[in-house]
Amino acid sequence: MNTTILDRHMLAILDLALAEDIGVGDVTAMSTVPPESIATATMLAKQPGVIFGLEVAKAAFQRVDSHLVVHHLAEDGAFVEAMTAIASIEGSARSILKAERVALNFIQRLSGVATIASIYVSAIEGTNARIVDTRKTTPGMRVLEKQAVAAGGAHNHRFGLFDGILIKDNHLAAIGGPDRIATAVSRARQSAPHTLKVEVEVTTLDEVKAALAAGAEIIMLDNMSITEMSEAVRLIGGQAMVEASGGITLHNVAQVAGAGVNLISIGALTHSAPALDISLDFAIH
Amino acid sequence: MNTTILDRHMLAILDLALAEDIGVGDVTAMSTVPPESIATATMLAKQPGVIFGLEVAKAAFQRVDSHLVVHHLAEDGAFVEAMTAIASIEGSARSILKAERVALNFIQRLSGVATIASIYVSAIEGTNARIVDTRKTTPGMRVLEKQAVAAGGAHNHRFGLFDGILIKDNHLAAIGGPDRIATAVSRARQSAPHTLKVEVEVTTLDEVKAALAAGAEIIMLDNMSITEMSEAVRLIGGQAMVEASGGITLHNVAQVAGAGVNLISIGALTHSAPALDISLDFAIH
Amino acid sequence: MNTTILDRHMLAILDLALAEDIGVGDVTAMSTVPPESIATATMLAKQPGVIFGLEVAKAAFQRVDSHLVVHHLAEDGAFVEAMTAIASIEGSARSILKAERVALNFIQRLSGVATIASIYVSAIEGTNARIVDTRKTTPGMRVLEKQAVAAGGAHNHRFGLFDGILIKDNHLAAIGGPDRIATAVSRARQSAPHTLKVEVEVTTLDEVKAALAAGAEIIMLDNMSITEMSEAVRLIGGQAMVEASGGITLHNVAQVAGAGVNLISIGALTHSAPALDISLDFAIH
Amino acid sequence: MNTTILDRHMLAILDLALAEDIGVGDVTAMSTVPPESIATATMLAKQPGVIFGLEVAKAAFQRVDSHLVVHHLAEDGAFVEAMTAIASIEGSARSILKAERVALNFIQRLSGVATIASIYVSAIEGTNARIVDTRKTTPGMRVLEKQAVAAGGAHNHRFGLFDGILIKDNHLAAIGGPDRIATAVSRARQSAPHTLKVEVEVTTLDEVKAALAAGAEIIMLDNMSITEMSEAVRLIGGQAMVEASGGITLHNVAQVAGAGVNLISIGALTHSAPALDISLDFAIH
Amino acid sequence: MNTTILDRHMLAILDLALAEDIGVGDVTAMSTVPPESIATATMLAKQPGVIFGLEVAKAAFQRVDSHLVVHHLAEDGAFVEAMTAIASIEGSARSILKAERVALNFIQRLSGVATIASIYVSAIEGTNARIVDTRKTTPGMRVLEKQAVAAGGAHNHRFGLFDGILIKDNHLAAIGGPDRIATAVSRARQSAPHTLKVEVEVTTLDEVKAALAAGAEIIMLDNMSITEMSEAVRLIGGQAMVEASGGITLHNVAQVAGAGVNLISIGALTHSAPALDISLDFAIH
Amino acid sequence: MNTTILDRHMLAILDLALAEDIGVGDVTAMSTVPPESIATATMLAKQPGVIFGLEVAKAAFQRVDSHLVVHHLAEDGAFVEAMTAIASIEGSARSILKAERVALNFIQRLSGVATIASIYVSAIEGTNARIVDTRKTTPGMRVLEKQAVAAGGAHNHRFGLFDGILIKDNHLAAIGGPDRIATAVSRARQSAPHTLKVEVEVTTLDEVKAALAAGAEIIMLDNMSITEMSEAVRLIGGQAMVEASGGITLHNVAQVAGAGVNLISIGALTHSAPALDISLDFAIH
Repeated sequence: MNTTILDRHMLAILDLALAEDIGVGDVTAMSTVPPESIATATMLAKQPGVIFGLEVAKAAFQRVDSHLVVHHLAEDGAFVEAMTAIASIEGSARSILKAERVALNFIQRLSGVATIASIYVSAIEGTNARIVDTRKTTPGMRVLEKQAVAAGGAHNHRFGLFDGILIKDNHLAAIGGPDRIATAVSRARQSAPHTLKVEVEVTTLDEVKAALAAGAEIIMLDNMSITEMSEAVRLIGGQAMVEASGGITLHNVAQVAGAGVNLISIGALTHSAPALDISLDFAIH
Repeated sequence: MNTTILDRHMLAILDLALAEDIGVGDVTAMSTVPPESIATATMLAKQPGVIFGLEVAKAAFQRVDSHLVVHHLAEDGAFVEAMTAIASIEGSARSILKAERVALNFIQRLSGVATIASIYVSAIEGTNARIVDTRKTTPGMRVLEKQAVAAGGAHNHRFGLFDGILIKDNHLAAIGGPDRIATAVSRARQSAPHTLKVEVEVTTLDEVKAALAAGAEIIMLDNMSITEMSEAVRLIGGQAMVEASGGITLHNVAQVAGAGVNLISIGALTHSAPALDISLDFAIH
Repeated sequence: MNTTILDRHMLAILDLALAEDIGVGDVTAMSTVPPESIATATMLAKQPGVIFGLEVAKAAFQRVDSHLVVHHLAEDGAFVEAMTAIASIEGSARSILKAERVALNFIQRLSGVATIASIYVSAIEGTNARIVDTRKTTPGMRVLEKQAVAAGGAHNHRFGLFDGILIKDNHLAAIGGPDRIATAVSRARQSAPHTLKVEVEVTTLDEVKAALAAGAEIIMLDNMSITEMSEAVRLIGGQAMVEASGGITLHNVAQVAGAGVNLISIGALTHSAPALDISLDFAIH
Repeated sequence: MNTTILDRHMLAILDLALAEDIGVGDVTAMSTVPPESIATATMLAKQPGVIFGLEVAKAAFQRVDSHLVVHHLAEDGAFVEAMTAIASIEGSARSILKAERVALNFIQRLSGVATIASIYVSAIEGTNARIVDTRKTTPGMRVLEKQAVAAGGAHNHRFGLFDGILIKDNHLAAIGGPDRIATAVSRARQSAPHTLKVEVEVTTLDEVKAALAAGAEIIMLDNMSITEMSEAVRLIGGQAMVEASGGITLHNVAQVAGAGVNLISIGALTHSAPALDISLDFAIH
Repeated sequence: MNTTILDRHMLAILDLALAEDIGVGDVTAMSTVPPESIATATMLAKQPGVIFGLEVAKAAFQRVDSHLVVHHLAEDGAFVEAMTAIASIEGSARSILKAERVALNFIQRLSGVATIASIYVSAIEGTNARIVDTRKTTPGMRVLEKQAVAAGGAHNHRFGLFDGILIKDNHLAAIGGPDRIATAVSRARQSAPHTLKVEVEVTTLDEVKAALAAGAEIIMLDNMSITEMSEAVRLIGGQAMVEASGGITLHNVAQVAGAGVNLISIGALTHSAPALDISLDFAIH
Repeated sequence: MNTTILDRHMLAILDLALAEDIGVGDVTAMSTVPPESIATATMLAKQPGVIFGLEVAKAAFQRVDSHLVVHHLAEDGAFVEAMTAIASIEGSARSILKAERVALNFIQRLSGVATIASIYVSAIEGTNARIVDTRKTTPGMRVLEKQAVAAGGAHNHRFGLFDGILIKDNHLAAIGGPDRIATAVSRARQSAPHTLKVEVEVTTLDEVKAALAAGAEIIMLDNMSITEMSEAVRLIGGQAMVEASGGITLHNVAQVAGAGVNLISIGALTHSAPALDISLDFAIH
């Protein structure tokens, strides 16, 4: 595998995690396990789900000890059944014990994200809508979580504040006046790089019309009813992309997709995904 | 408030989070909101729960713009009802918009941890047991999450590998032989700093007896039934602290406490706590 | 002035510059100038030009000595005549001497960029085209140089590889085949965030047609003659933005703008702008 | 090649440059170029000049992807004719595209410095004078630019404030009084490490005499006429090194050398050298 | 040898040391020694002592030049006679000269610590007491110095403030009142992780009794006479570990051990150990 | 006091020291001392000596808690009698306890260096020689230790490899041949910055002559007898500075000075200075 610059983000959070867990050393393994003890460990998914995080887990082991040999027994993005072995680690028993918890903390969390994303994608299968993520990610893990979302079959919205123009209610409040949507879109066109589309968040059909008139390229429907969404889609008539946002769960996501929107953004993909249960089983040579 | 060295950990993860969200700048606010626009924002808990993270949220705003004035309207560790205002922020509208998402990402996650911790604590009220956390924390956020656990009324287990001796199944496997518990405890006493207690994880009553004989100061009962736990507590008879671990949920935690253990460790406090719903409401001057 | 997160980029390069110049200390000032010596220095533009970098120059002085008082006598983005005082610095003579060279190195370079940008903008005044920058910036100074370009009245293209899709000849070579433009645009739409427009670099009128047919939102004409550019603009007919690039100098930029393109990108704004001559004049109290 | 500690300075600015360009990733290459695509690229000097920066360009590619194979087809410090291939890069097409711009930004700028230095050196060939650089370097790139100057055949002055004593007009102003040159030199001898020579900047022949009397080991003639310089050289008579500085261009540098000075310092070597035109040509396997 | 996470601490101080010594480069070796010159150097202990720091010395050479080949001719922790060769280094003469001083600075200091530790251990041979270190370590070198202490046969006390509870006179002063020892111990039990033992510093026999009654697990006798210590040991009667501290030198350490204490802490192991004389002898190929 | 860039070096080692001591927090103070407890502490020199490190000690307290008020009761560089109060610290008891050990570790070590330097200076009072330090400093503390040496009245040699040319036996070995001294000096003149003097280490009178003939500006006499030194001084006759080095102790330093050398370098100033005994006395409000 290539060592790419994306690793910069992964390594930053990985090194924080290793430092906070290991500190000045693993007093248990150092005092009880002989330095020459060699072990093989198996990483086991104890629940069914979509696996993501094998690369960062491997990196966790190899940051602690570059001599550990890690083999992936599954692919990032693959769905596995319960009790599937997904990786093996061989080398110094002390080193494996030292990295174990951090490696698991990453892969459990990221596999939880990939799994919930895949469930949302399944729920709208056959429609033209895309499930997209939000900026409601775990501090320090945005790049990894965005990758987990994609591994689960969903799509990525903008990464951050720098690569997409999204004019929200608070921006409109800051501008004020009856023409605030037109003003906002016009200012964005004037000052922001021309490589970025302009997206506007609206809450009423009148605002939909204003955004459309202003030339918004993406219109986000915030917390609208299914009926309103359908009407908004009809009004927009393909002149802008339509994104549904707010209050969308597995119970209503199919209906939202049925209303004809292009994009459905779900914060819970990253802010509340439960961890997938993954453990490390240990054998000594 | 003092600027203490604990901030080192908080600032490390906070700066990562700000960097990944803001990157080279907030193109929306920069292009649409005038630099002189001043706003007041209110942070609102939309669900009932225990709030934790007001300090880090304040720091998020003030790392972005040291002139933002942040007032706490609640205390870290307080339980609040739904729709309670917990903080106000006043200053440059651009700056508030820039820091908003990161501040919320921290406080939503940490309040989720404090809230679930407080629910577990309530569930065993009146017993002598303590709810304690584990090392199954979010990468980079261990110090903050440990504080959130304490804010919810639970207690902290060791922080990491460096401040507690916990001999687990994998350590015992690495040592091997019929006397592996005695060997492990003896080695730990010989080599590790004398300031640390020795804890041993056991899965059977025979192992309980071995740990007790070896002089373990804390015995962790892993995935035992309530009946086994009661018997273990009886065997140990106060000669060591007893910790229950594994498979403990809100459904059975009271029973576990009733078995007489001293400590009940719950990984889900930190690895799967759903975010508390908190938003930022914006007014322009 | 606000301390915003943009400072992160400015401080990174500023601190590198201070470290490489000052090292373990200023042996001349430390040994020859008494610690109690107080001075006032005036920063003087010795050539006419557009000033940019007053903030970073101020920061250079104040990183060295937080007690230095710096007043701006001009505004970033202002055109000044030769021999205009643009800032004053008052405080410890040792500290001013220590920071002087680094402060000047920044402001001379950035004012050179702003000045050359303003000259290009003047050259196309009255047309509908925008002068835009490129990624051919000084290592470590992209954010500052992009700001200098804007201070000179030109516009910013994408910041980097992350906030704009620009399919260039090398990408098309990597894809290959007669439909490579269509393939590339289609793949970008499928995988990249929907917030980004798709730009394609073309060298012939046939490629212009292919990019248009593929639905490119921006078409970059690479090294075309004025005649070809005019024809391309006619073919595109407002269905995409048109950017001219390559071989454009002050001698032909007005003709390029006259061909009807929307954007004219100029690498020399940042890769070869001569420094503006600025010096520091010193008086002792 | 050895991995030496000099890399610390190169890596600091290189990593800043890569981070600002790549950010969270290359959205174009990631979405349009297949991960398995392999390419060979040729780095081509499109103008004649002295090449410098092959090592840092190589490092740019290999920081992005340690599997890229980079061969140098020229040597740092070599003069090449227009259209000379100076390096080849083979490996993942995505990785080459990701590092391309940063690698070129370094080598274009540094080769521009080496080339202008070599032109100044040629202009004084046959004299005893040395062309030396100044501290007017690009922020963050001093070590690299000093190496480029040497690669062009010129010499390095002190690196920064820490490895040379240079008493300038502002230091003398801070000391004041008729004996300020004698005072300054005497103080420097008393307090600064004895390993450093003492250099004094003078503007008149009287100051030359004062510096000589004070025992200055190097005397810098600031903005003197050729006649004054000749007279100063005669006065000094080999008792100190003589450095000419200020207002020296390709038009008068030979005359300055002819005046008999030992050193001629030229700020423009580093603050205003135009980039050498170098491109990357791409072929797909 | 494994590259373990402990290296994080070693590398932090090692890189500081290399940066402060090498700065922008080794002007002597760069100008006088040809780049192709190859040498073999021998590291020689010129005094008898316990060697520690071979790993960090090796790392110093290899951080400067990863191609240097370093062989250990002794083991960390071994006692060597005067004039024993303890390591050989082969490779670029320039690189060896560049790293030499830093490598020696580490190993001389750490071997000094290991040697003095071994002398204290010898002085109490045959008793049941352990020599332990303190937090009076060299800034930045605590992990390395703690390892040196262990290499000399002594034991480590807590690493820092985070992995041991030690209630000292100043804590007791801050609490105040006649029951301050009981209060302090009780608070520590209530709030600190249960994995840590509680140690109390006492100065009188009454305080010994109070600490014992409060349930302290370790009692530190501060600056007591041998007679008082013996009485304290008798009072405690094995119910807590006993640590002697303060004013202990090679002259009285055996008597202290004879008083029956378990632990004897010696600040001078790390704060005043003289360096062991070690040099580098150089041969050229 | 100014915040100067020299702080960069001080803060690097200070932050390492605080991080290694405090880690994830001070469990003793956090659990036993109430957050509202306010104390005043007095820093007391318990031995006579020259104090150095008051600034870094103050910084240690204020990095931990910016609200601590620190007053210096002595000056850096002052000689104090035993039992002199040298600083007072007022503020949060928890914060003072947290920073205490690190602050003391710095000031004890640095005052030890300043004290031993002052003793050597006294020993040669009335001669023309200067006591100078070496590069045998504590890793990470070179800037602070060089300042301590100067505070004790001695002088600083070069800081590192970058600000002085010192051709030693190993450089000469690497060059080889009968003319190796001439070759080395000539190469240094050709390639190194002209701002640096050339120093050569010699061991025989023949080498003294060779160094003199080669034009060395400083000649270091390595491990010569007093008689040889006197003869060397006579031979050199003021044409170069003369430095004595190797095997110099308080017993013979006056004789060495009497031999007429200009500089006497003493490694033990920094590699083996015993710590000065300084403690912190605590009172509670």
